[in-house]
Amino acid sequence: MKIGILGTGIVGETIGAKLVALGHDVKISGRAAVNEKAGAWVAKVGGKASYGTFADAAAFGELVFHCTKGDGAVDAARAARAGLAGKILVDVTNPLDFSAGFPPTLFVSGRDSLGERIQREVPEAKVVKTLNTVNCNVMVDPSRLGADSDVFVSGDDAEAKAVVSRFLREQLGWREVTDLGDLTTARGTESYLLLWIRLMGALKTADFNIKLVRA
Amino acid sequence: MKIGILGTGIVGETIGAKLVALGHDVKISGRAAVNEKAGAWVAKVGGKASYGTFADAAAFGELVFHCTKGDGAVDAARAARAGLAGKILVDVTNPLDFSAGFPPTLFVSGRDSLGERIQREVPEAKVVKTLNTVNCNVMVDPSRLGADSDVFVSGDDAEAKAVVSRFLREQLGWREVTDLGDLTTARGTESYLLLWIRLMGALKTADFNIKLVRA
Repeated sequence: MKIGILGTGIVGETIGAKLVALGHDVKISGRAAVNEKAGAWVAKVGGKASYGTFADAAAFGELVFHCTKGDGAVDAARAARAGLAGKILVDVTNPLDFSAGFPPTLFVSGRDSLGERIQREVPEAKVVKTLNTVNCNVMVDPSRLGADSDVFVSGDDAEAKAVVSRFLREQLGWREVTDLGDLTTARGTESYLLLWIRLMGALKTADFNIKLVRA
Repeated sequence: MKIGILGTGIVGETIGAKLVALGHDVKISGRAAVNEKAGAWVAKVGGKASYGTFADAAAFGELVFHCTKGDGAVDAARAARAGLAGKILVDVTNPLDFSAGFPPTLFVSGRDSLGERIQREVPEAKVVKTLNTVNCNVMVDPSRLGADSDVFVSGDDAEAKAVVSRFLREQLGWREVTDLGDLTTARGTESYLLLWIRLMGALKTADFNIKLVRA
């Protein structure tokens, strides 16, 4: 299928490369109409990859992934708005604030989340927050961890969450996908990032995830 | 050993009952010198359980657990301060703010945590944050989940963390105890509570935990 990706950083490129490898047509995107680094990525990945503006990628995709850095995520969504009408926007972003260095804090928390901000910016789209609790290498290859672990979906549209959950299972290989509820539950997964950061420090790797264990 | 517990709520009573069952002398505590509900608990649990003020329990314990509700935790630590000098304070509290109902937010976050606030209130004690990522029934019986899961320690004193980690393993049955680092890492485990709350909602039980899965 045709998939748009907002963002040309490591997350967008990693998801994009995986989706091209799976046979999809993928357009990654940035603010500018021309992007040398993204052009090099397109050349490397090959025929089914392309580059355009945020608006281009949103118009192109039947499904759109939001993979920019947190601090540019609302602006990118605004730029993409027209093309997103009626579509599912898979929001992988996190509201990490590195303005005072490492470790980051969150620039949105409490009674709001970045997922909800993005949804307010593109009310005609169906935002599904997911995958933001793992590093991008784990996002596209959960089996690399050697054992099942869990990923979550949050969103206000039940059908959109079902479509994204199926995509996670069938395309990316996730076996455990838990629906946390409406988009306010993104406050939970975004807040978890502050533990994720500390776990990365203790484990000295980003190659990890959590598995739910229940009685 | 002699163990003091700050708090007479479900967390303090559950940990207290477990420690009495393990053969320890346990003094739970509250603000007042007399507490009818705590008195009933002492009568039920039996001979090695007792009740006193926060100051009494801190003076009594060779090891002290901090198990009050979050919004009273700093005040309780202040009341216990004299007795805590040189001792390890095992901080199980969470800064949950229920002032606007459920789900709660955090009344401390960002560049601070409740664990750090408590440490600043009792600088002569060695605060070790732990167990705050699980329900109290799981705290005292991790095996009830049927598979190993993880718990964390955060604190500025390496020896205190080693003592607490050993206690968690040998007394409470935790097999996976990860040292996250200094007490600022409590910001991570306290923030995780916002995901924990959403997981409880999705799983419809508090009887769960997370297991780290790494490559």
